[in-house]
Amino acid sequence: MEYLGKRYLFTPGPVSVSPKVLLTQAQPMTHHRLPEFSEILKEIRENLKYLFQTRKEVYFFASSGTGAMEAAIVNLFSPGDKVIVVEGGKFGERWRELAETYGLTPVVIKVEWGKAVKTEEVERTLKAHPDAKAILIQACETSTGVKHPVHEIASLTRERETLLVVDAITALGVYPLPMDELGLDVVITGSQKALSLPPGLSFIAFSDKALNMSKNSRLPKYYFNLQKEKNAYEKDTTAFTPAVSLLLGLREMLRRIRELGLERIFKHCEALSLACREAVKALGLEIFPEVPAESLTVVKSPEGLNTGEFLKFLRDNWGIVFAGGQGELKGKIFRITHMGDQSPFDLMVALSALEMGLKKFGIRVLLGEGLKAAEEVLEKYL
Amino acid sequence: MEYLGKRYLFTPGPVSVSPKVLLTQAQPMTHHRLPEFSEILKEIRENLKYLFQTRKEVYFFASSGTGAMEAAIVNLFSPGDKVIVVEGGKFGERWRELAETYGLTPVVIKVEWGKAVKTEEVERTLKAHPDAKAILIQACETSTGVKHPVHEIASLTRERETLLVVDAITALGVYPLPMDELGLDVVITGSQKALSLPPGLSFIAFSDKALNMSKNSRLPKYYFNLQKEKNAYEKDTTAFTPAVSLLLGLREMLRRIRELGLERIFKHCEALSLACREAVKALGLEIFPEVPAESLTVVKSPEGLNTGEFLKFLRDNWGIVFAGGQGELKGKIFRITHMGDQSPFDLMVALSALEMGLKKFGIRVLLGEGLKAAEEVLEKYL
Repeated sequence: MEYLGKRYLFTPGPVSVSPKVLLTQAQPMTHHRLPEFSEILKEIRENLKYLFQTRKEVYFFASSGTGAMEAAIVNLFSPGDKVIVVEGGKFGERWRELAETYGLTPVVIKVEWGKAVKTEEVERTLKAHPDAKAILIQACETSTGVKHPVHEIASLTRERETLLVVDAITALGVYPLPMDELGLDVVITGSQKALSLPPGLSFIAFSDKALNMSKNSRLPKYYFNLQKEKNAYEKDTTAFTPAVSLLLGLREMLRRIRELGLERIFKHCEALSLACREAVKALGLEIFPEVPAESLTVVKSPEGLNTGEFLKFLRDNWGIVFAGGQGELKGKIFRITHMGDQSPFDLMVALSALEMGLKKFGIRVLLGEGLKAAEEVLEKYL
Repeated sequence: MEYLGKRYLFTPGPVSVSPKVLLTQAQPMTHHRLPEFSEILKEIRENLKYLFQTRKEVYFFASSGTGAMEAAIVNLFSPGDKVIVVEGGKFGERWRELAETYGLTPVVIKVEWGKAVKTEEVERTLKAHPDAKAILIQACETSTGVKHPVHEIASLTRERETLLVVDAITALGVYPLPMDELGLDVVITGSQKALSLPPGLSFIAFSDKALNMSKNSRLPKYYFNLQKEKNAYEKDTTAFTPAVSLLLGLREMLRRIRELGLERIFKHCEALSLACREAVKALGLEIFPEVPAESLTVVKSPEGLNTGEFLKFLRDNWGIVFAGGQGELKGKIFRITHMGDQSPFDLMVALSALEMGLKKFGIRVLLGEGLKAAEEVLEKYL
């Protein structure tokens, strides 16, 4: 009967975390230099390779995802280095800001928010700037829900010296992004997304090509110094104090991911995202991104809806938390995630709140139409 | 991503418990004879009066609800005493079995399972047995979902010496049952129902009329001896070791109930049960009980459905747990509760699983019809 305070988190990070993981994290504190903790680290590191679909080492930091983005920059480059930045949203902007902060020379490919970058444009830019050290891109641009064509772009960088540095924070573990197979040079993710953990951990893996480039990097780095982490890795420990509780939760989730298998998890996200998109369309609304990722559904706010008030109402009165738009998209979109500890039935919670909420706010929707459309997709998967 | 093990409990006890209560119960153990625990007991006892809508004392036991039913019998009666038992389901049977176990003389009013007892029949029985010490009845017969006319029957016992002993285990806190106002003589409930707590606590309150009768009771009693509890109550303690963690959870829930107010809680249950019934009917199914209680919706299994397999499938594959029928109703009904830590949106989870599950099992249903009907009811309350 706590229901009037019950919350349903449909934000694209933090996401809902399973009770089992929460309980795991509530275990008594242990010390990270104990032999038993080395065993935990070994298991985690092995299973992270499975998640990243790589044979390379995967490093983690106690930081938000942005920390791992910064780690990529400071470990790979030197002042003045030219980098191509795909900027089609808030997180593309972040790549540019990071590049500028460290005195790099960003060549920005501006992409209209909501559109995916064209592979041909990336190719043209690469040809115009053969000295570019890397392409910095998002696999999924969380602010717009766009899926960039990382698979295609990888075929361009594979044949060049230029690295492909992929912020896969809201993509890894959602849809296939096999690092080694595609030849991605840097892959980054965070704990509070598909890993369905609380925020606080970031992850990064380097290809051999990236490792080679990192040897010549002259940017200052201390906490995010991958060489330090590599040395510690070899001794089954970490360079600095790790986020012990989060790592216990991570071990649990990685076990679960291996047990289920990536294929099954990708199917699950596909089912939820497809069902949600069909529901949104059945309600007469539009999907915002040109090429939507399975990580979240981004909905164009319908004409006449005060989006801010709408989201506030759902949150404060019904406990349903969607995310609004960021930056230039504030008030124009809202976002429903498919990451986190969600069953297909949780989507019904989101969609029912969406239908009833829109109607309450004077938008013409037929109750039940969205739910029906979602069920018609889901039944093929269930 | 724990979702493949995610569970949604729609059984009429145990019910879902809010995370806040679960965390409260996870506090370090305390001792029940410490002064601070007396303060906790005082608060609980005061708030239980609010829940029972009585000025009398409300006692609790570490036991299931059946323990409090047994407490009623052993504290009120003497061997050979005549009692009228309303028997229209598994819990009516329990009253009769308890009466027989203690050598009482039950006069049984047999009611077809699924029907409510007729007040006139109770009146006729009372007239034929003016020496009956009590009527033993359920407010809500959980096995059939029936609401018996306790309000009307109370008007018969108020003018007589006969007591009205009400098993309100799945009724108190769900719909109005004001003990003092109606003149109910004994009211019983359990923790794992409307109180939205784990099982393990039972509750009982006696009117003055019941207290008077209990003075002459000659049945043996030790653990369930109310006089012992009354003595302990006066010293702000309990006769035996209480279920400490559960009581901490109880304190939390009772605070929440006072904060929300009974009226609001009754409205919530009314909304959920009405919405669920309309959804069931929209799917072409029938409601089983003649007079349904708001505590749970009991659905007649449609022709051709293997109910056992259906419920097992929902449970094992989708994590949705409904209750089947008990005793003679096994395979003929299934039950969806509206008690516990549920928001109106949780009903969408239940109904979506119901719709898609029925279709999967070959029952002709139109996807979305149940959900739509539910939303049309809920929007009037939300």
